[in-house]
Amino acid sequence: MREDLGMKSDAYFIEKTINLAKKAEGFTSPNPLVGAVLVRNNKIIAQGYHKKAGLPHAEIEAIKRGGSEAKGATLYVNLEPCYHYGRTPPCVGGIIKAGIKKVVIATSDPNPLVKGKSMRKLKNAGIEVKLGPCIDEAKRLNEVFFKNIKEKRPFVVAKLAQTLDGKIATRSGSSKWITSEKARHYARSLRDKYDCVLVGVNTVINDNPHLNGLKKIPLKAVIDPRGRISHNSYLVRKNPQKLFLFTSSTKGNKLKNIPAKVKIFNLDKKKGLFNLKELLRILYARGITSVFVEGGSQTLGRFFDQKLIDKIHLFLAPKIMGGKDSITSIGAKGFSLKKCPVIKEVSIKRIGQDILISGYPVYK
Amino acid sequence: MREDLGMKSDAYFIEKTINLAKKAEGFTSPNPLVGAVLVRNNKIIAQGYHKKAGLPHAEIEAIKRGGSEAKGATLYVNLEPCYHYGRTPPCVGGIIKAGIKKVVIATSDPNPLVKGKSMRKLKNAGIEVKLGPCIDEAKRLNEVFFKNIKEKRPFVVAKLAQTLDGKIATRSGSSKWITSEKARHYARSLRDKYDCVLVGVNTVINDNPHLNGLKKIPLKAVIDPRGRISHNSYLVRKNPQKLFLFTSSTKGNKLKNIPAKVKIFNLDKKKGLFNLKELLRILYARGITSVFVEGGSQTLGRFFDQKLIDKIHLFLAPKIMGGKDSITSIGAKGFSLKKCPVIKEVSIKRIGQDILISGYPVYK
Repeated sequence: MREDLGMKSDAYFIEKTINLAKKAEGFTSPNPLVGAVLVRNNKIIAQGYHKKAGLPHAEIEAIKRGGSEAKGATLYVNLEPCYHYGRTPPCVGGIIKAGIKKVVIATSDPNPLVKGKSMRKLKNAGIEVKLGPCIDEAKRLNEVFFKNIKEKRPFVVAKLAQTLDGKIATRSGSSKWITSEKARHYARSLRDKYDCVLVGVNTVINDNPHLNGLKKIPLKAVIDPRGRISHNSYLVRKNPQKLFLFTSSTKGNKLKNIPAKVKIFNLDKKKGLFNLKELLRILYARGITSVFVEGGSQTLGRFFDQKLIDKIHLFLAPKIMGGKDSITSIGAKGFSLKKCPVIKEVSIKRIGQDILISGYPVYK
Repeated sequence: MREDLGMKSDAYFIEKTINLAKKAEGFTSPNPLVGAVLVRNNKIIAQGYHKKAGLPHAEIEAIKRGGSEAKGATLYVNLEPCYHYGRTPPCVGGIIKAGIKKVVIATSDPNPLVKGKSMRKLKNAGIEVKLGPCIDEAKRLNEVFFKNIKEKRPFVVAKLAQTLDGKIATRSGSSKWITSEKARHYARSLRDKYDCVLVGVNTVINDNPHLNGLKKIPLKAVIDPRGRISHNSYLVRKNPQKLFLFTSSTKGNKLKNIPAKVKIFNLDKKKGLFNLKELLRILYARGITSVFVEGGSQTLGRFFDQKLIDKIHLFLAPKIMGGKDSITSIGAKGFSLKKCPVIKEVSIKRIGQDILISGYPVYK
């Protein structure tokens, strides 16, 4: 009998940390998703994950649960442990103090100024450090956090629901519903992953949506250049404290009877209404780490035109609408053939009768 | 050891006939696709398929090859054998004469006036007849033939190549290329299955396509209301005898220098140019059993508007073009949300980096 029969690999335990981390998806903002397992003799003896900003980090959670057994154990964690004091003491100290023998990390800290610092400190304390298993998966898990740290802006996800021929509504604006109840339910679950849902005012006027997730009420941002949103719309009436309204201070702005709890940003078109980088900067400055853009056609088009969509979820209903004047899913200016962004890492999934195509745009 | 160990089912042998029949896909018009196998003691002793109109039918081919062994054998065939004299003598007589003991048929003749007639004649001659295994597959195999017989019109297939957001060209008409070489090669192989490739004149003006298959040069039909096709276009210069031009006899028609070999149909817009049923009637009267419609936007839209597309092949390039004024894949009038045709029997296939979605529109 070989000694290593049934031995589990480092990748196996890192997979566990990733699955633990995912449990808190959408709830740790602005912190990353982190899971940790403590292993002795190839067996998991304790585990933990980061549940919410302010609550203990995954590593400390696992170590605490491991108790006296933590000493001499191997710690697996999907992201390099933190070095600095934040709302909780740094994990590096806790790991050293607990007498951990070896630390296996999937990916290092995305911040170039911090990257590797914790690993060095662990090594200097005589702890064996291994970096690398499942690195791509670990980076994808924290794609929001990596984008935040590297580009100091929110991660932006586009969501569309269209017919096979790319229509989201008839020429009269009718769009209820393109996709099935099952697909719409799935789309609502996607909202749970992100801090903010953003739409153009036409979507509010046409559909009067609630834009809530299944588990949480995200912040909503509405781009409304001429103040056309109704004070009777769902978003204004319910949870006005969760509404950011981006409007212009130009004459002719119709905005009225909006409760004081709604945050109104007066911008001109160049300074943030259609210059979406500026709009994202404002959101990021207010703690929004991710934005889920749900339409309409012009809003999505502008985000693509400005190369700001990081990920796309395209729901395809197996229908043909046809029509030269039907509303196209992605409008605005658009790209020349050579400049069209290509979607990479395409995944295809059937959701009831509908099809979900997801991936990451790469711009030219 | 059980006696039936390794016994092959009727469905197994019918699958064989279907695979044989497919070898001649696109080349038997106006005849159906038929394969036949002759079985003794659960073993195939001979097989045949119909290769081309005028050549022997599948059943007769198999019987001839079976020779003296045909007597007492079981004949499997995917379609009810023919009853009438056509270009070849009816198969029913040949089957009886050969001393076949049993005939297994996947599907009966689609013509209600003929349906079951051959089966009765076989039974009256003392032959055991079984109908039914793989009936749906057998009907799909001959979807062109069934449509022809039941509706006296060609089977119409739409082919589109679009970006994820439903665009086939930029606003300036640039469309080379949306999909990859691999997908375009596959699309050319689809042309081999059908009698005629149809496009609107804008596609000829913008792309100057050859519209050929990989194995054959199909007939081409171009809808050209104002006679704008150039005598220098590929379709006019090469194989003019394979070109049907549908134009109008109204003043201002610019058609000139078109070789006599091109068949020109002068129609007014109501009588066949935009009344596509009439156009299909004209093609059908000239022996065209299937039409492969490749665009552009308005032409495909009109075919859908008139509920004439029987099957769709939608190639999706993993790209976003965006643009309010980019060309939508299916234009013309379009449907209200409630009236949108739903695509049934959806299949999804990856072809290189592209995605092919196929299915059958069901109209409301």
